[in-house]
Amino acid sequence: MDLNKITGPSFLKKLNRRELEALAQEIRTFLIEKCSITGGHIGPNLGVVELTIALHRVFNSPTDKFLWDVGHQAYVHKILTGRASMFDTLRQFKGLSGFPKRCESEHDEWETGHSSTSLSAAMGMAIARDVKGDKNYVVPIIGDGALTGGMALEALNHIGHEKTNMIVILNDNEMSIAPNVGALHSILGRLRTAKEYSKAKEELEGLMKKIPVLGGKMAQTAERVKDSLKYLVVSGVFFEEMGFKYLGPIDGHDFEALEKTLEYAKKVNGPVIVHVITKKGKGYKPAEEDTVGTWHGTGPYKMETGAFLKSNVKGPAWSSLVSESVRKLMKNDKRIVAITPAMPVGSKMEGIQKEFPNRFFDVGIAEQHATTMAAGLATQNMKPFLAIYSTFLQRAYDQVLHDIARPNLNVFIGIDRAGLVGADGETHQGVFDINFLRHIPNIVLMMPKDENEGQHMVKTAIDYNEGPIAMRYPRGNGLGVAMDEEMHALPIGSWELLRDGQDAVILTFGTTIPMAMSAAEQLALIGIEVKVVNARFIKPMDYEMLHDLMGKNMPILTIEEGVLQGGFGSAVLEFAHEHEYHHVKIERMGIPDQFIEHGSVDLLLEEINLTKKDAVARIQELVSTKKLGTKSV
Amino acid sequence: MDLNKITGPSFLKKLNRRELEALAQEIRTFLIEKCSITGGHIGPNLGVVELTIALHRVFNSPTDKFLWDVGHQAYVHKILTGRASMFDTLRQFKGLSGFPKRCESEHDEWETGHSSTSLSAAMGMAIARDVKGDKNYVVPIIGDGALTGGMALEALNHIGHEKTNMIVILNDNEMSIAPNVGALHSILGRLRTAKEYSKAKEELEGLMKKIPVLGGKMAQTAERVKDSLKYLVVSGVFFEEMGFKYLGPIDGHDFEALEKTLEYAKKVNGPVIVHVITKKGKGYKPAEEDTVGTWHGTGPYKMETGAFLKSNVKGPAWSSLVSESVRKLMKNDKRIVAITPAMPVGSKMEGIQKEFPNRFFDVGIAEQHATTMAAGLATQNMKPFLAIYSTFLQRAYDQVLHDIARPNLNVFIGIDRAGLVGADGETHQGVFDINFLRHIPNIVLMMPKDENEGQHMVKTAIDYNEGPIAMRYPRGNGLGVAMDEEMHALPIGSWELLRDGQDAVILTFGTTIPMAMSAAEQLALIGIEVKVVNARFIKPMDYEMLHDLMGKNMPILTIEEGVLQGGFGSAVLEFAHEHEYHHVKIERMGIPDQFIEHGSVDLLLEEINLTKKDAVARIQELVSTKKLGTKSV
Repeated sequence: MDLNKITGPSFLKKLNRRELEALAQEIRTFLIEKCSITGGHIGPNLGVVELTIALHRVFNSPTDKFLWDVGHQAYVHKILTGRASMFDTLRQFKGLSGFPKRCESEHDEWETGHSSTSLSAAMGMAIARDVKGDKNYVVPIIGDGALTGGMALEALNHIGHEKTNMIVILNDNEMSIAPNVGALHSILGRLRTAKEYSKAKEELEGLMKKIPVLGGKMAQTAERVKDSLKYLVVSGVFFEEMGFKYLGPIDGHDFEALEKTLEYAKKVNGPVIVHVITKKGKGYKPAEEDTVGTWHGTGPYKMETGAFLKSNVKGPAWSSLVSESVRKLMKNDKRIVAITPAMPVGSKMEGIQKEFPNRFFDVGIAEQHATTMAAGLATQNMKPFLAIYSTFLQRAYDQVLHDIARPNLNVFIGIDRAGLVGADGETHQGVFDINFLRHIPNIVLMMPKDENEGQHMVKTAIDYNEGPIAMRYPRGNGLGVAMDEEMHALPIGSWELLRDGQDAVILTFGTTIPMAMSAAEQLALIGIEVKVVNARFIKPMDYEMLHDLMGKNMPILTIEEGVLQGGFGSAVLEFAHEHEYHHVKIERMGIPDQFIEHGSVDLLLEEINLTKKDAVARIQELVSTKKLGTKSV
Repeated sequence: MDLNKITGPSFLKKLNRRELEALAQEIRTFLIEKCSITGGHIGPNLGVVELTIALHRVFNSPTDKFLWDVGHQAYVHKILTGRASMFDTLRQFKGLSGFPKRCESEHDEWETGHSSTSLSAAMGMAIARDVKGDKNYVVPIIGDGALTGGMALEALNHIGHEKTNMIVILNDNEMSIAPNVGALHSILGRLRTAKEYSKAKEELEGLMKKIPVLGGKMAQTAERVKDSLKYLVVSGVFFEEMGFKYLGPIDGHDFEALEKTLEYAKKVNGPVIVHVITKKGKGYKPAEEDTVGTWHGTGPYKMETGAFLKSNVKGPAWSSLVSESVRKLMKNDKRIVAITPAMPVGSKMEGIQKEFPNRFFDVGIAEQHATTMAAGLATQNMKPFLAIYSTFLQRAYDQVLHDIARPNLNVFIGIDRAGLVGADGETHQGVFDINFLRHIPNIVLMMPKDENEGQHMVKTAIDYNEGPIAMRYPRGNGLGVAMDEEMHALPIGSWELLRDGQDAVILTFGTTIPMAMSAAEQLALIGIEVKVVNARFIKPMDYEMLHDLMGKNMPILTIEEGVLQGGFGSAVLEFAHEHEYHHVKIERMGIPDQFIEHGSVDLLLEEINLTKKDAVARIQELVSTKKLGTKSV
């Protein structure tokens, strides 16, 4: 059938088994082909083809509510709800989002991107249903990885207590982004191998009948034995203890088993967990054979071979540069312990993991725990390196503030994917970290201009022993600059003059430096000479240089790939006012007060007026008003 | 014995049972007496007297590490580690902290205040120990309430997986701040009543012997039955599933049972949970009989009767004003659902709970879940009211940003205890919320000047249907102003002129308004006429009024009981620069870039120069530089 002609999921109910199998095959072919061009979360989506079809057959969306946890596995759901024709624009500017979006479809009632939110949101939806007296089903679909996130566990605890009607689909593929870790993972592992227990139940009942009839105390004991057998029979004792009925495990690629169990789940009173075993990458050999998470989310690839198309990169991946620099220092510094919340691959920590297995910890999707564990290490004079994506560090704001910065502990936070990340869109843009960290006392925050400065900043962070220090680095690759042999520490709070000029100054850092340099060169052609300063320390700033610049009444343009409200530019404004430089003209460029959608970073920067052209115009304006201002006075 | 003469815990090891009982009694008398004068967390501390003594006998602090989760139950620990003589200054400015403090003692290696951090920190300490090859014990002490916090569950999952040596003391008093909720609570309840199971074990073994000897499949089944019996025997199946050895339950007031079990725990390889049942308020009748949490933390009281000393308050408690206003609106607005993360008493939601039990949810200590659950409710056109202390909202920063503000959902967040809270100190000051909320797109943030405006703001928030809206309100009581009969909504973003003047303007909101008014009156006496504006909307601001003020080149002083970096004053600076009001003099008063310790709010305000005197001086300076500035140009 032509997937593009699907307008909604109702057609599914009429299909027979053979037609369903054919549809699943078509969807797989479609996904493999489309993602080979656009890139995307191909692995997770190939794993849920049958599950998504079965869900849409058994339930009635949008009356019944599906909540896709994390959300990157909703491609099949998007196809079945009438969005196949948009897949050529997947993850592109103004195109189809890679995550559920309320504005895209009435079938997407819950938006996500960050992990482990679905159970809490589902509880909200279920309460709303019960208060209104409605009868719909609420069906969160959560992976085994996402289940280890603290808020998912908080939700389990609450739902199990309230006994609210809800059907939780536990999509267990033994791997989220990287192979999963944690005790819960072991519990699931035991459940996966426990398929035979339901047979054992029958045998046991036979056995129990053979026990002689007993009176008094022994009879009570026999009752207790029977009670205890429920653990054997249901096998999902962890979930039963949490107040859920456990159903499973079920083969997530078997339509019959799926539908039978889901239909049964609809009849259960109270919360149910349906444990579904799926195979990530199912039906596409390169993705099926992936054991580390390479095929979780990818760029474009050659469909026939699964070879990734090489992009035209110059320097090393930033994640790799930082993690490898840490690894080098770990050789001679036994204080260093590296921590990741489920991103050993994304944060390129495989080298550390291999060379220092005893000083490397993947704690699973658990940003809060990772952060406070780092604090605990620091109390014992260790030097934890916590690598965490900017957007996910949002989850650990309180832990950074309350557990690390308040007692002023020596933790090195590597803020990966800082700035715009592009295709993953508004749930993943790393544009708030300056704003949520800058007002925290005791913290040092920095961002390097290139990979060579990056390695020196790693050294700076490891050597720094006066409190927490955080280093931002962007998604993508370095500039391809020459690397110094030896790493050396930079003076805390020191900025660097990159280009001199007398008419105005640009203060910027990180990814926007090349743009600023280029703007300055263009301005020089029309006779405006602009200083460019590498404001590599966002906190503390280079106060000496600021006094010097403001004392000379130099017009200032700040540029940051971060949100303007309370950001770096505001820090410069605060400094100016605190020191009564009332006449200095200061303008700020950065991200406006809105969430930034998905699309290529270049297009996004254009959309929000954060380009060289804008910098040139702003400087021209600043310089002219300076002259005008001088005249008018 | 004289508790003041204790210098460290080593003396405990020499005491016999009778001496221990006498010591426990002395400590209780001491605590009841001291707290009757200073106030404090008397209930939790009376519950852990024997437990704390036993811990210090069995372990060797500071070589062995105690981590007091939440930390308010560390008074006995403070006495035993040489700090009894400081109890007259408990929770007072420059006095003894109500929480563990690294700077107070080498026995306080982990500082807390917020809940559920101890297991993660303990894991960090245990890893440090293992990397260094040390042999000490790491002993977090966590309450049954704190265990429901997501990060504690994340930590359990990680520790159980790594099988790290650690002795977790689960201090189960069936009540944290309010009676506990959640499935875990039920699990603990079942465990508490399972004391007889070890006897059942013997009976069972006898029973098993009566089963006829079987061959083949039936023999295997019988083996499985025996396996399943471990669940009966150990009874702590939840914790066993999580990878912990479970010991207990133990009577937390029985020295012998405590020491025997703790000694046994020391011999276990891998992580252990010791389940200790304690009685909150033990030994003080008014506190023992408390069923709702009144005696969790108190102000001064009359020791003999337990009657609380009335403080000289004027208006209603802010928490009560807000919750009761919501309750009134709930009568006619069925969309409203009220949510608290374990603070039904603190946030004065008993009235709501009683009148609308189906629309009230105490989710336990689970701020993340509470916040995203509110988002889920809002997707279904309900109007959730989420009451949460400012300092604890830090835990839900990502949930506010990613789950509520990003999809722009109609959630009303009541930010309780905003501003300085006083005696609880730096872990509890609500001084960051403006800074971590203001840069989040779509959010409305406001704070009322008095309780009458407060009730109107509640109505404003409930009526507002264009996205998230948050209302800050302080700890303590209203001003005692007259209340309007009817609540009415305020125009979003509207400020209010409280006092007119031509020389300068103070922009401020909430608790600092009376101080600003008083400063203006004093300045009027020396001929300086100052406008005072109730800047009750922090975001969005009253842009019309700002244009008017800045257009007139009026010197501006902003005052906020919040951190300066990126705060309200910075928003005013940003506005001025964005609209090129380069000549306007703006100064900001607020909390400097440091953590603010414990003490009375008045003393703290004096310490950080946030008083009427300072406001008067700053205005005088602003007005004089204005005149100077005008002259010099």
